[in-house]
Amino acid sequence: MPLKNDRFLRALLKQPVDRTPVWMMRQAGRYLPEYRATRKQAGSFMDLCQNPEYACEVTMQPLRRYDFDAAILFSDILTIPDAFGQGLYFEEGEGPRFKKVIRSPADVEALPDVSIKEELAYVYAAVARIRQELAGRVPLLGFSGSPWTLATYMIEGGGSKDFRIAKQFLYNHPEAMHMLLQRLADAVIEYLNAQIEAGAQVVQIFDTWGGILTPSAYRDFSLNYMRKIVQGLIKEPDGSTVPTILFTKNGGQWLEAIADSGCHGVGLDWTIGIDEARARVGEKVALQGNMDPCILDAEPKVIRAEVKRILEAFGSGSGHVFNLGHGITPGVDPDHVAVFVDAVHEFSAESCRQTE
Amino acid sequence: MPLKNDRFLRALLKQPVDRTPVWMMRQAGRYLPEYRATRKQAGSFMDLCQNPEYACEVTMQPLRRYDFDAAILFSDILTIPDAFGQGLYFEEGEGPRFKKVIRSPADVEALPDVSIKEELAYVYAAVARIRQELAGRVPLLGFSGSPWTLATYMIEGGGSKDFRIAKQFLYNHPEAMHMLLQRLADAVIEYLNAQIEAGAQVVQIFDTWGGILTPSAYRDFSLNYMRKIVQGLIKEPDGSTVPTILFTKNGGQWLEAIADSGCHGVGLDWTIGIDEARARVGEKVALQGNMDPCILDAEPKVIRAEVKRILEAFGSGSGHVFNLGHGITPGVDPDHVAVFVDAVHEFSAESCRQTE
Repeated sequence: MPLKNDRFLRALLKQPVDRTPVWMMRQAGRYLPEYRATRKQAGSFMDLCQNPEYACEVTMQPLRRYDFDAAILFSDILTIPDAFGQGLYFEEGEGPRFKKVIRSPADVEALPDVSIKEELAYVYAAVARIRQELAGRVPLLGFSGSPWTLATYMIEGGGSKDFRIAKQFLYNHPEAMHMLLQRLADAVIEYLNAQIEAGAQVVQIFDTWGGILTPSAYRDFSLNYMRKIVQGLIKEPDGSTVPTILFTKNGGQWLEAIADSGCHGVGLDWTIGIDEARARVGEKVALQGNMDPCILDAEPKVIRAEVKRILEAFGSGSGHVFNLGHGITPGVDPDHVAVFVDAVHEFSAESCRQTE
Repeated sequence: MPLKNDRFLRALLKQPVDRTPVWMMRQAGRYLPEYRATRKQAGSFMDLCQNPEYACEVTMQPLRRYDFDAAILFSDILTIPDAFGQGLYFEEGEGPRFKKVIRSPADVEALPDVSIKEELAYVYAAVARIRQELAGRVPLLGFSGSPWTLATYMIEGGGSKDFRIAKQFLYNHPEAMHMLLQRLADAVIEYLNAQIEAGAQVVQIFDTWGGILTPSAYRDFSLNYMRKIVQGLIKEPDGSTVPTILFTKNGGQWLEAIADSGCHGVGLDWTIGIDEARARVGEKVALQGNMDPCILDAEPKVIRAEVKRILEAFGSGSGHVFNLGHGITPGVDPDHVAVFVDAVHEFSAESCRQTE
């Protein structure tokens, strides 16, 4: 089925668009009352992720309310560690936890051989179902956590303030860390390729915690494995892959290296000006971002002014996917999201016309 | 009394040194058993801060164990909001909390006129006592939180994961935010000048939360007020002030602007290479940093290798004060700190000799 709205794909390939495409990280989420209702109906958060019908429902919910230019698979970034037998669970209001943790090189060697294709079949079933439900309305984005980000949770056993345990592992056992990251990179390749086969039209790698590393550790232990993933994706006969986006939170200092990874788009948080980012890497990649999610807590006129400011900072021409610089936070007024999405389309229509 | 060891001052002024000076943010802290004993004896954390005898004791403790080249006043960054009547207290294991919070422009206007000179007399008494106790051994560093960082705590009522309330205030009420920051900048000037009069030989401004802002908000709402503080410090007849250090965590993207503030030294976290930082602003300012505090959890050989790597990355010549990229975390083995300090002196002795 041909896409009715391909702005998102076109912007990632830096082809002309009629307006700047927009979606939001965590757009299917707790700020929506209908999400909270489905979540309650499903039972636990994992029940929600693992049931393709529910996963499809919450993926579609924001598209019924807002004029988003992309849908993103509803899932959790920690499905892969769970598939490795670490026992993912969620404490209410506490974030993710693992029953088993990795604390030694022996723990890495003891990781079982698992078929990501089989273990995470529920994810691909959700992808297929969402594609069907979308019926070509907008493209579907698949995703995975980055190997480094997955490793931090697997070692810490959950989230962390300073990632001391994960870093101690990295500093004391760099070889075992590389072994773990290679296992995870292989798993992510298998995972994203299965999502692509099931219908994902773009994939994004969320490197939520790459930005806590030193520049050399980031390059060797995070970016290195994201590059391998980009290289490992299914290729078309002409050698191309689906468009890929790398998002390292707090990665603004390393944009050039990220843009050299072979990805199509680079996700930006809000600590870098998109004008500066474009000047540095805009010839090579598309840019995704970069509004501070906290702007959505502000008054509508402030939201509109900030959208305008960011669009003007990017400037004319294609290669911009509007997004927040991080996931939307629970508690945002859903009406403010409509203000945001509509402002992106309204203000970008003019500048896009100028350049066509 | 003349200083016996002035490496720290000399490095900040980029004068030749016989080896790279080193101190640690939060060097008087919970990783030391003697600190925990004094803390217990004092009662609450605030009792520890407010008693000049105890504050002096814990300031001196790390200098008895390690060959640090600077002492830093033991205090809390939140003494100023406390002086404004916000009621600072500490929940065990929870971090700082305020009884009163600022949530509206009216709350800012209602802030009382306070004499920082009188309200925080206990701090200056501690400074004078520590200077006496140091007897010229090493310089004494005074400090304050930055206006923006103080404001975040005053608005949030404590620490925060995403600073939504503080940012909502900034975005919805920029004028009131500027009024609050100006009040705080005036207070910080009064505070640091009183510390200098009492004997502080260098001052550092801790901008712990500047790095969560957009570039333009950082410039207007954080750096802008730090610049005013630097300009407001007591001047010698020749127009000079004590050496000043600005430390914005996650400020690596804005080094040029920070170095333009008139400060003598810029504190770096570990997400930027000190070689890159030196290339960008090393002609203008000294650099302080920048080892990941988590390295101290690693094995001694790893600590030594990382110290060596950072010294080599800085290169020859003066203008480097070795430090961590953030405060030392509780739970670090005190023996590892000795390895760290000694490695800085050992490895830097050679490169310093080469350039004298």
